Amino acid sequence: MNVLVINCGSSSLKYQLINSDTEDVLAKGLCERIGIDGRLVYQKAGCDKEITEAAMPTHKEAIQMVLDALVNDKTGAIKSLSEVNAVGHRIVHGGEKFASSVVITDEVLEAVAQCNDLAPLHNPANLIGINACKELMPGVPMVAVFDTAFHQTMPEKAYLYGLPYEYYENYKVRRYGFHGTSHSFVSKETARFLGMDLENSKIIVCHLGNGASISAVKDGKCVDTSMGLTPLEGLVMGTRSGDIDPAIMEYIAKKEDLDIAGVMNVLNKKSGLEGISGLSSDFRDLTAGAKEGNKRAIAAIEVFCYRVAKYVGSYVAAMNGVDAIAFTAGIGENVGLVREKICSYLGYLGITLDAEANAKSGDNCVISAADSKVKVAVIPTNEELAICRETVALV
Amino acid sequence: MNVLVINCGSSSLKYQLINSDTEDVLAKGLCERIGIDGRLVYQKAGCDKEITEAAMPTHKEAIQMVLDALVNDKTGAIKSLSEVNAVGHRIVHGGEKFASSVVITDEVLEAVAQCNDLAPLHNPANLIGINACKELMPGVPMVAVFDTAFHQTMPEKAYLYGLPYEYYENYKVRRYGFHGTSHSFVSKETARFLGMDLENSKIIVCHLGNGASISAVKDGKCVDTSMGLTPLEGLVMGTRSGDIDPAIMEYIAKKEDLDIAGVMNVLNKKSGLEGISGLSSDFRDLTAGAKEGNKRAIAAIEVFCYRVAKYVGSYVAAMNGVDAIAFTAGIGENVGLVREKICSYLGYLGITLDAEANAKSGDNCVISAADSKVKVAVIPTNEELAICRETVALV
Repeated sequence: MNVLVINCGSSSLKYQLINSDTEDVLAKGLCERIGIDGRLVYQKAGCDKEITEAAMPTHKEAIQMVLDALVNDKTGAIKSLSEVNAVGHRIVHGGEKFASSVVITDEVLEAVAQCNDLAPLHNPANLIGINACKELMPGVPMVAVFDTAFHQTMPEKAYLYGLPYEYYENYKVRRYGFHGTSHSFVSKETARFLGMDLENSKIIVCHLGNGASISAVKDGKCVDTSMGLTPLEGLVMGTRSGDIDPAIMEYIAKKEDLDIAGVMNVLNKKSGLEGISGLSSDFRDLTAGAKEGNKRAIAAIEVFCYRVAKYVGSYVAAMNGVDAIAFTAGIGENVGLVREKICSYLGYLGITLDAEANAKSGDNCVISAADSKVKVAVIPTNEELAICRETVALV
Repeated sequence: MNVLVINCGSSSLKYQLINSDTEDVLAKGLCERIGIDGRLVYQKAGCDKEITEAAMPTHKEAIQMVLDALVNDKTGAIKSLSEVNAVGHRIVHGGEKFASSVVITDEVLEAVAQCNDLAPLHNPANLIGINACKELMPGVPMVAVFDTAFHQTMPEKAYLYGLPYEYYENYKVRRYGFHGTSHSFVSKETARFLGMDLENSKIIVCHLGNGASISAVKDGKCVDTSMGLTPLEGLVMGTRSGDIDPAIMEYIAKKEDLDIAGVMNVLNKKSGLEGISGLSSDFRDLTAGAKEGNKRAIAAIEVFCYRVAKYVGSYVAAMNGVDAIAFTAGIGENVGLVREKICSYLGYLGITLDAEANAKSGDNCVISAADSKVKVAVIPTNEELAICRETVALV
């Protein structure tokens, strides 16, 4: 069947139309600047990108334009909308209500809305996208795939913060974790690719992109992950701080005369690799800067890798061992230097890298040496394909 | 020589008079409720505690009472103040200015005052204590021993946060670490007791008390530690949260209608073991509660141990291996259950415990089994003795 995968942001929307039998992407693209001016990027498989500037006051017009493009006479991937058999929606926060994907019903929409508080920027946008699809494609089954669901298997000792327990009971303050679709996909793919028994395995997935998180996956189930109540916690990211002393917020608020919202803005948008380097949140710029001897670019890379290595070390303790470590997402898949630096801390686990294999990028690839006691692999993530598979399994 | 060791808090003052040749404690005690009503506790070695309720409006009167008690005809430990040869002061925050202890001069006092911003509750109190001693014991050499100094050897990758670099340059926002005197003392004592070469060793010190922190000590130098800009970061503590998603602060502020200071108060005083358990910040109460099946007490213990184990795991990665792990401070020295639970995560390092040895408390003790690949030991800390030794080395 053909599955339309939709990932709605507050002013953008990414989509892919996937044939679930062949797992081929028939068309993909995005809508940008929804509610501002509007721009559609559409690309049929094997064709060039088409860019259309056009007003899209709301997500409804945006989705209408995507559907029009999909059935367009010249470059449409399908002839009629009846060829879209299901829609899979990425939802950021499912709270404790959703430990797996679900077919979207009115009750589900209600329950997702109840999680808006936990992801005020993302969940409302996700819901707008769902409602727009409902209007434009009535009768087409839709599935909600949650970024948090895979992590719902974490034990209490991993998800409880050292906070008044009432905050958990009354406000649901706990670790949720994000990138769950990716961690789920990559952990399964790692076991399959390495010929391991997923049900009897200890895998650490390093999802290192502009947003970055790590998960510990034991016997196929997530037992810990680095993002928390929100995607701010954990690793140093493109522009996000990751872990800091919470007392820094008060200190900075005073020094910079900011309120909490002002500090949060700095922590989310002006920190991380960009904040340390003062150069860029993009790893390509940082590696270029480091080559030229830019000390702050070097520092940003060192801090980033050191933090990842420490999280890996902590998750080896969490699982009392590790069989395989997988690198994925933009940096994890493409920056051999980062993988090498991270693994340089892990010799005590009997990890040795195959430098030649680590220099490559692209497909699934083992980068540990033959005698390495822990397998290390690059496993490209594919969240859209994972959402497509989840959708097919439920409709 | 005789060294008076002074540890000044905002309304309290702990003291010990130590003979540095024998390292015997001649007398010890504390002043409480300074500026409120005032209470002196004094205990000469081998004698009972004496408690005196007496007004002490400022630290000066408090110290005067201590000195009077020390030379008291009946229970004084010395005959005259001329037998106090030096004073060692604990200072909480030395910023980046102090990487070791120093003889106190006017320049030192000025530099300590410049760190007040970083420890607004502690450093001013420390300075008051120093100034009171200067007045009451003119001419007696005094040494400042900093809680942060031992950690100043941390490399940049360990002390830099993922924040705008300007915050480090302009406001000195970085990881400092605390309990440094204890981490220094215990790491050295661990190497000595286990017959290791300190200069060629990887030691993890778990200082687990009401305040708790961990450090990674490589070749005798601290390379990482869990407390940060302030003593709030890191492990779950008696009433402190330790690590949380920084975004929780904004979330809680909104839910509870608190400002940053209000949230900080919760994180410092109503969180941690007490917050999770709702029972107590004291581990004795928690273990008693857990025995009775109190689920939140059990959860508090599990979260505490799990977090310690994860930090140990991360520091093994930071040092690419570990030779010895030392437990110290109230919980670390006395709660075998905690040591057992923590080590239960660390089998992958080849760690096995000797259950009988782990059941004991008291002196230096190896608790790992003979075949354990990493030595695990209980090494009681003694910050006052450490301050005494630092003082003697400098005067």
